[in-house]
Amino acid sequence: MTALLTAFAELSAIGGLDSGGVERQAATVADGRTRTWLTERLTARGFAVRTDRIGNLFGLCELVPGAPWVLAGSHLDSQPRGGRFDGAYGVLAAAEAADRVRRGLAGTPRYNLGVVDWFNEEGSRFTPSMMGSGVFVGHLGLDDALATVDDAGVSVADALDAIGARGSADVLRPGDLAAYAEIHIEQGRELESSGTTIGLVDRTWAARKYELVVHGAQAHTGATAIADRHDALYAAALIVVAARELADACTPDLHTACGRLTVLPNSPVVVPREVRLHLDLRSADDDLLAEADDALRRRLGEIEIRAGVRVEERVAHGWAGQHYDPAGVALGRGVADGLGLRTATVATRAGHDSTNLKDVTPTVMLFVPSIAGVSHAEDERTADDDLCAGVDVLAGTLARLLDGALG
Amino acid sequence: MTALLTAFAELSAIGGLDSGGVERQAATVADGRTRTWLTERLTARGFAVRTDRIGNLFGLCELVPGAPWVLAGSHLDSQPRGGRFDGAYGVLAAAEAADRVRRGLAGTPRYNLGVVDWFNEEGSRFTPSMMGSGVFVGHLGLDDALATVDDAGVSVADALDAIGARGSADVLRPGDLAAYAEIHIEQGRELESSGTTIGLVDRTWAARKYELVVHGAQAHTGATAIADRHDALYAAALIVVAARELADACTPDLHTACGRLTVLPNSPVVVPREVRLHLDLRSADDDLLAEADDALRRRLGEIEIRAGVRVEERVAHGWAGQHYDPAGVALGRGVADGLGLRTATVATRAGHDSTNLKDVTPTVMLFVPSIAGVSHAEDERTADDDLCAGVDVLAGTLARLLDGALG
Repeated sequence: MTALLTAFAELSAIGGLDSGGVERQAATVADGRTRTWLTERLTARGFAVRTDRIGNLFGLCELVPGAPWVLAGSHLDSQPRGGRFDGAYGVLAAAEAADRVRRGLAGTPRYNLGVVDWFNEEGSRFTPSMMGSGVFVGHLGLDDALATVDDAGVSVADALDAIGARGSADVLRPGDLAAYAEIHIEQGRELESSGTTIGLVDRTWAARKYELVVHGAQAHTGATAIADRHDALYAAALIVVAARELADACTPDLHTACGRLTVLPNSPVVVPREVRLHLDLRSADDDLLAEADDALRRRLGEIEIRAGVRVEERVAHGWAGQHYDPAGVALGRGVADGLGLRTATVATRAGHDSTNLKDVTPTVMLFVPSIAGVSHAEDERTADDDLCAGVDVLAGTLARLLDGALG
Repeated sequence: MTALLTAFAELSAIGGLDSGGVERQAATVADGRTRTWLTERLTARGFAVRTDRIGNLFGLCELVPGAPWVLAGSHLDSQPRGGRFDGAYGVLAAAEAADRVRRGLAGTPRYNLGVVDWFNEEGSRFTPSMMGSGVFVGHLGLDDALATVDDAGVSVADALDAIGARGSADVLRPGDLAAYAEIHIEQGRELESSGTTIGLVDRTWAARKYELVVHGAQAHTGATAIADRHDALYAAALIVVAARELADACTPDLHTACGRLTVLPNSPVVVPREVRLHLDLRSADDDLLAEADDALRRRLGEIEIRAGVRVEERVAHGWAGQHYDPAGVALGRGVADGLGLRTATVATRAGHDSTNLKDVTPTVMLFVPSIAGVSHAEDERTADDDLCAGVDVLAGTLARLLDGALG
């Protein structure tokens, strides 16, 4: 499997940072270069590459004309200064596993076989995350997604056009799928701690995401009396602290954070008039998350009074805790067992493209260990042996899916 | 005095906002246009306009070749979405008062007469504030100031060149001055509350300013366990709240705020790795400010432990509470009394160009009332009568200074 590692080193060099991480946000030049790299690799192996209207890139190997498709993939885009494994490993693993399965076919399988790079899973440049798979399954409207703008005012449509990544038609539709499989690094440390090679994802954490705008009033940091202030940043800071205190009170069952916070006008001597912030609350427990939501809203009301501001909720969305198809979990376990690899069921706290896909087709979601649980950071790492074992399990899974293991 | 109000309306239209405020940050196109407007106005009235190496714009009326200069001025640059009175009123008032004095001269005065627009008093685009006057008096090095960059990486030198506002030599030096006078809106509500027309500034609040960098570690907002996080924004929020709590505990004698806070990488699903923030602490009482500084540093140490981050102090500077020349206060009072205007001594909580100038020459600093104390905001207002009365007092002050009232 040195071919896999060599290919992964090539891929990781695109947008590569000295730290070992990568900078390849969605529809940037670096993202475009990874797509070109993948296109060439898939084409050379006999896959027909096509791109749909939201920039999802498919490599198709039509084995049974007109039959449904078994699809495997993940995403090539990264966070700003992200890790090189997050998403990219899953896409490369899918390409390698699919190619291996294609080459090893003995007879005519039941389904066709495809590889996919879902557009903008990360959601750092363009919100929301999991955009390409969200549009594919119908959770998100195509036009809304294409009209989304980044901080510089560039739309998804224009950004995709700029890298030649926007197709003019659908390539596959949900109804065309027989099954979906994805492999990803764990982004936690449970597998590493327990000496497990393959995580079988059986459930998702629930999430609630909030975009808040704090409306205060601009004033002089030095001259304006404290009693006369309506300091939007003071209020925002209270919100950030309140969110963290919710998590601290429910360790380790609730995760909270504010990842993005923007201050206006952001001048050293001006009391901020407005702060925009993104809060992220997650738990395996839907009830706990609902309680946290209630508690957060109470705190927002108190903070409005304490800081003399108004807190506007621009967007709130989320997802309930959900289960992956138990038959898919069993399928992954069977393949790993056959290879003598230790498995465990795990929950995913992060969302993945498979979180969307499982709503429309039988889905298998696999994890490999992430050293020290580092995630969304440049020093994210997974051992070479685990990378290779993951491809083995994914290939075995695809082979069984092609034969109709999940129907 | 409708000429004054007409001229002020003209000036306010440059970079004018629908709200009544202005957007004319230092060395922007709008700032350049105000400088052109002032140049034309001064030139038409017989003042020779020259610009020094840091972009201070002087209008010179040489009455006694080789004699020292009485200078009056303020600044034309604004905060982002700033008020139209802050600084600009003082420059226009200086130009009007100087012109009136020049026209009314009976014999040969003792000194020469000049008007000045100090570059970048606001410090929003380029830090620190009071840059032009700081370089003039020698508190700040010329080369350091010219090399300062804005958020887009543009240097002061390049920004000044872009609007043709950088001169090649000094115009005046501190040793050339006989006296300085400035008028400004109060940026507080003491004058309004007491029904006073003219504030005689007799002292400054002390200030301490801090540029802090919180170093954390990038992680996944959803997946990374709370115990594994080093959340730079959580720490920064604790700092913002701590600073405010210091002020709340010492109301109304201590003012604190964070005006600028920048988050990296600022992605909705990434725990921030780094936050840069500017804190501003001010008090009339040097001892109280020293205690607040001690308390803040203790809190920073606690916050480092609580959030698992490192807080780096990049820059800290400030100024002690200082007195303005009592003779200058008495001079201003005498002029206002002669005009039948009610006066009161006041402290300035904000810094002004005169805060620098008073260190090198006898200085008179005057305030006019600011409605509701609004400052660094678009709805800043001062009544027309007060604007006109301020020019009357400034003109009387300049006339006396020209005759050697402060030596």
